[in-house]
Amino acid sequence: MVDNTSAAALRSILDGRWSAVRDEVRDSLNSADWATPTEPVPIADYRERTTSQLLQLLREPWTRAGFSAQPGQPGDIGASLTAFECLGHVDLSLFVKVGVQVGLFGGAIAGLGTERHHREYLDRIAAGDLLGCFAMTEVGGGSDVANLGTTATYDPGRDEIVVHSPTPSATKDYIGNAAKDGTLAAVFAQLVVDGTSHGVHCVLVPIRDEAGQPVPGVTIGDCGAKIGLPGVDNGELTFDQVRVPRDNLLDRFGRIEPASPDQPSGAYTSPIESGARRFFSMLGTLVRGRVSVGGGAGAATRNALALAIRYALVREQFNRPDSDDGIPLMEYATHRRRLLIPLARSYALALATNDLVANLHELQGDSGGEADEGAVRRLEERAASLKVANTDHATRTIQTCREACGGAGYMWENRFGALKADTDVFTTFEGDNTVLLQLVAKGLLTQYKDSFESFDTRAMIAFAARNVAETVVERAFGGSIIGRLVAGAPGRDADNALQDRGGQLAIFEDREEHTVATLAARMRARAGASDESDESDESGEGVDPVEILRQTQPHMIAAAWAHIDRLLLESFAAVAEECEDDATRELLCTVCDLFVYSTVEANATWFLEHGRISPDQSKAISRRVDELCAELAPHAATLVDAFGLADAWLECPLLDRA
Amino acid sequence: MVDNTSAAALRSILDGRWSAVRDEVRDSLNSADWATPTEPVPIADYRERTTSQLLQLLREPWTRAGFSAQPGQPGDIGASLTAFECLGHVDLSLFVKVGVQVGLFGGAIAGLGTERHHREYLDRIAAGDLLGCFAMTEVGGGSDVANLGTTATYDPGRDEIVVHSPTPSATKDYIGNAAKDGTLAAVFAQLVVDGTSHGVHCVLVPIRDEAGQPVPGVTIGDCGAKIGLPGVDNGELTFDQVRVPRDNLLDRFGRIEPASPDQPSGAYTSPIESGARRFFSMLGTLVRGRVSVGGGAGAATRNALALAIRYALVREQFNRPDSDDGIPLMEYATHRRRLLIPLARSYALALATNDLVANLHELQGDSGGEADEGAVRRLEERAASLKVANTDHATRTIQTCREACGGAGYMWENRFGALKADTDVFTTFEGDNTVLLQLVAKGLLTQYKDSFESFDTRAMIAFAARNVAETVVERAFGGSIIGRLVAGAPGRDADNALQDRGGQLAIFEDREEHTVATLAARMRARAGASDESDESDESGEGVDPVEILRQTQPHMIAAAWAHIDRLLLESFAAVAEECEDDATRELLCTVCDLFVYSTVEANATWFLEHGRISPDQSKAISRRVDELCAELAPHAATLVDAFGLADAWLECPLLDRA
Repeated sequence: MVDNTSAAALRSILDGRWSAVRDEVRDSLNSADWATPTEPVPIADYRERTTSQLLQLLREPWTRAGFSAQPGQPGDIGASLTAFECLGHVDLSLFVKVGVQVGLFGGAIAGLGTERHHREYLDRIAAGDLLGCFAMTEVGGGSDVANLGTTATYDPGRDEIVVHSPTPSATKDYIGNAAKDGTLAAVFAQLVVDGTSHGVHCVLVPIRDEAGQPVPGVTIGDCGAKIGLPGVDNGELTFDQVRVPRDNLLDRFGRIEPASPDQPSGAYTSPIESGARRFFSMLGTLVRGRVSVGGGAGAATRNALALAIRYALVREQFNRPDSDDGIPLMEYATHRRRLLIPLARSYALALATNDLVANLHELQGDSGGEADEGAVRRLEERAASLKVANTDHATRTIQTCREACGGAGYMWENRFGALKADTDVFTTFEGDNTVLLQLVAKGLLTQYKDSFESFDTRAMIAFAARNVAETVVERAFGGSIIGRLVAGAPGRDADNALQDRGGQLAIFEDREEHTVATLAARMRARAGASDESDESDESGEGVDPVEILRQTQPHMIAAAWAHIDRLLLESFAAVAEECEDDATRELLCTVCDLFVYSTVEANATWFLEHGRISPDQSKAISRRVDELCAELAPHAATLVDAFGLADAWLECPLLDRA
Repeated sequence: MVDNTSAAALRSILDGRWSAVRDEVRDSLNSADWATPTEPVPIADYRERTTSQLLQLLREPWTRAGFSAQPGQPGDIGASLTAFECLGHVDLSLFVKVGVQVGLFGGAIAGLGTERHHREYLDRIAAGDLLGCFAMTEVGGGSDVANLGTTATYDPGRDEIVVHSPTPSATKDYIGNAAKDGTLAAVFAQLVVDGTSHGVHCVLVPIRDEAGQPVPGVTIGDCGAKIGLPGVDNGELTFDQVRVPRDNLLDRFGRIEPASPDQPSGAYTSPIESGARRFFSMLGTLVRGRVSVGGGAGAATRNALALAIRYALVREQFNRPDSDDGIPLMEYATHRRRLLIPLARSYALALATNDLVANLHELQGDSGGEADEGAVRRLEERAASLKVANTDHATRTIQTCREACGGAGYMWENRFGALKADTDVFTTFEGDNTVLLQLVAKGLLTQYKDSFESFDTRAMIAFAARNVAETVVERAFGGSIIGRLVAGAPGRDADNALQDRGGQLAIFEDREEHTVATLAARMRARAGASDESDESDESGEGVDPVEILRQTQPHMIAAAWAHIDRLLLESFAAVAEECEDDATRELLCTVCDLFVYSTVEANATWFLEHGRISPDQSKAISRRVDELCAELAPHAATLVDAFGLADAWLECPLLDRA
């Protein structure tokens, strides 16, 4: 099907717009010193190693590229995010440590602070002269940021902010950089001015002195050993009436006017009137973190697939009958399915993640003016979607790869242990996947309308019950190509619809539209059932929203997944369509077909239940998956070579011993 | 639905016939000294700990119960296996270490040796005075035992056996007890007498001297760190022309006659003429190991479920609208599904494993005479089935439980790390799950007929192509109860079939029968397509069996799973039916219903494709799963209390901090 140049051609497609920075990472970090060690390292040593790697890395030009986010000088965000994603191939403790320092801590100051904060901190953070924490999560409620317990109370008499943990459950938990390295923390807390709470804001609080000791009022705990990420010093922070200057409030979205004769207690002002919208604007600054976590998980998954697929090509199990010729694992149909289906999805995810990074780059980068709110909202929804898709795929696929390598996969030296353990928390942090899926579903329900912006379940249901008559998917990636493909398709109901890229797109769109529309109808029915007396009730009073949520939650999750699969296909289809080299396009199209058919197969129950495919078609789809796996098996080495993984990142005895 | 006595009543049902020994383990090992440590322990220390626990344990009366397997004194096998299963709740390194010493090493001598071996070794093994290895797996081919490379060649001149590793791929690998403790190894090797190979046999080879040093000719490697099981000293063994007396051959199934004037090179004799049958008789001695690995995985999974479910009952996430009342995780529909569906399957697995242990006890225990071959074959098939079912469930469920506990689940102290890492290899060892599923499928195809006993693919296909016209499931567990329930059922096609236990059984049986019958038909078609010229050809010549296997392998796997689900339902249905206490039975029946409906839901594609359910029925089944989860949620604490887990085994900060 293809010649030997295909791996290079495919790699250039996967590398995408910021391929140069990928090459830089490949070249500069291609050594055992950088790659995850192939024997367990005690936590204390691993932490030292990771801190030292972090500081060394901050001297590399490309890590600074996108970070000097002073207004007007945003840097090359796409390059920075791409480089960061590549760290997911190298070592995940380092990936997270960099993410905490640069993405979260630095990102909070860049995104939530104003010019004086940028001036004072950003260069020192970028250079590693100031190490810090992003202190959001609390013991009491991981995902419920709006209800954080920590308080930041303005004291007009001393013109200071008093940061306090009023209950044990308000202790900040799992905070990266807290146990060992951080000296300054960006603390999320309920801001209280003049006796009124104005919701969650972020305040800079010193936590360690020059000697590395906790400052008075701050108690620092060490989370100790985790399942993975041994190089990241997660810790706990508890604040006992800790005073910081008023200037330490990151005040882009809300500021404190000092006490004056008119306002003896000071006053709170904000450029955003709605508390809910302000809250979501602040959370929106997390979007880079979500994009990055998804990207890093995707990168680590490609490492695992490269190891398992290369092993399957050389490792033999059982002999041909009456022969001493062994049968390579890749010859077995189940083995092909186990590895090549996730491989196809990894391609889809990598390409969609590239699109998302470009999307973010355009929106937050050198666009000059402020992006419109709809575009920001869409970006956030896609970041959440791909964070879930990438991390869910990582957890399942790395496990599969370990199992596909049998006993050898269980030896620490062969890397699956670290890959699995380190990525395991990715489904949880930067937004728990289940919570994010609901967020995505809510976004689909409201079609990004401004009238519904909060997590408030009651408002959402009231809205869904009235306004969502029919949904229309909004194409995310691929632009006009997708429209053209769909327009030329034979129609989703045709027997041959799945054989046509446009038909595939139409089928994926249809699944999403129908799932969202029926979700809205179901919510409407539930809301109506509990509140028939007052159909005009705008507030949804009388409905028990928790009960409705309970009844519709699995449907919401299904809608979000239908959306995610459609996003992935759009990216994949557009890239495959645009590929100019015939042989490469043919190979890429076969991988895309495997992604499509295996996704329909995995969701065949839905397609059958909704009369989208017949029982015979469903069986034919499974046969087609087998065929596509057989077609791709001879190209499996090319397909993983295209990931462009440096030798040192995969170096292990596994392949020697096959 | 039930009163507070239910947990005790349920526990007594789950504990089963050997409940007394479960109580003994609960009482004697209920301390932090025995339970898995909640902080990481360096490998060297963990190995010391586990060796010392092993020796201490071998002094407990119940570990010896089933082990003194001298003919005529088989001990209480059921009690021994049950006690061993319980170690899966305590610490999995200890579980495996005991399994290697007593089950595999001791089991090989008991099962493959004869009286003089039993007399010389078994008491010392049982007392821990002789620690040993079970050296089967080689570098070259994990699952392909028939083609092992190690040789054991009889030297008639010195009346000795020469054990040798002719190639690097013949090195024994991953051998438990090899790296540190073992002094004697039961080595599986191709036995060569008078220049002829007689297939795989087991020879006892000393590997260490009194001082713990490798004996001359034996090279011992250390596998080092693994993903989990830090307390097990896995190693490599290479033999360079190592000589042992002829008596060291474990000669129950094949012996060497010493050189004599008539037979100057010695001679090989065996009570089993067929080489294939001899090989499978030897492998049959592994059945206890498979039963135990399944049981241990099931036990560890119940630990994880108990932690995650107790957490979900107290941990709150988000508040009710306009309220400070938090919503416990167990109130969320998706969270219920995540935890309660695996919980129901864990019940099914625990009950089926109890049945299997009783089955093995009857067959290998004090039955006096030799069991008939069909019964042995059925036992082996069920052991393989439940090994796969339990270990697959463990890998997926422990992962789910970790994720369901969010960031807390990621902290080492909360036990999921060790549970996940330690059980991760269970899908691989004692028979890789994919290989075992094919073994099960082959057994289904041949309906246990003696005419087809080997792994030989060609013979299997030739057989399937001719002999399997229609399959009839052979009921495994539950005896006459199942027959009665099925007889009284409304028939599998009736709308209400799923509401009736007999109807459920009929539906599960139908899925298995149909899947096996179509598999046979497919093989027949494939074989016919490549060999139309000679329909009477007994040998299947002309067929490329590897190609046929490739094309039918996913179907084989599907058939095996259909069989497994049916086995599980039979055990569960019989136990639920026999329960005398009304309230307990009602609760147990609801759990069984959830197992049934969630299993049908998970396989809905098959039921839809084959016209067994309509699209509307399929949707109704999903709604019923939601309803059953809602019915069981208030009883979740009772359901996990019934596991009877000692406090020390679950002790961790997770529940305190909720």
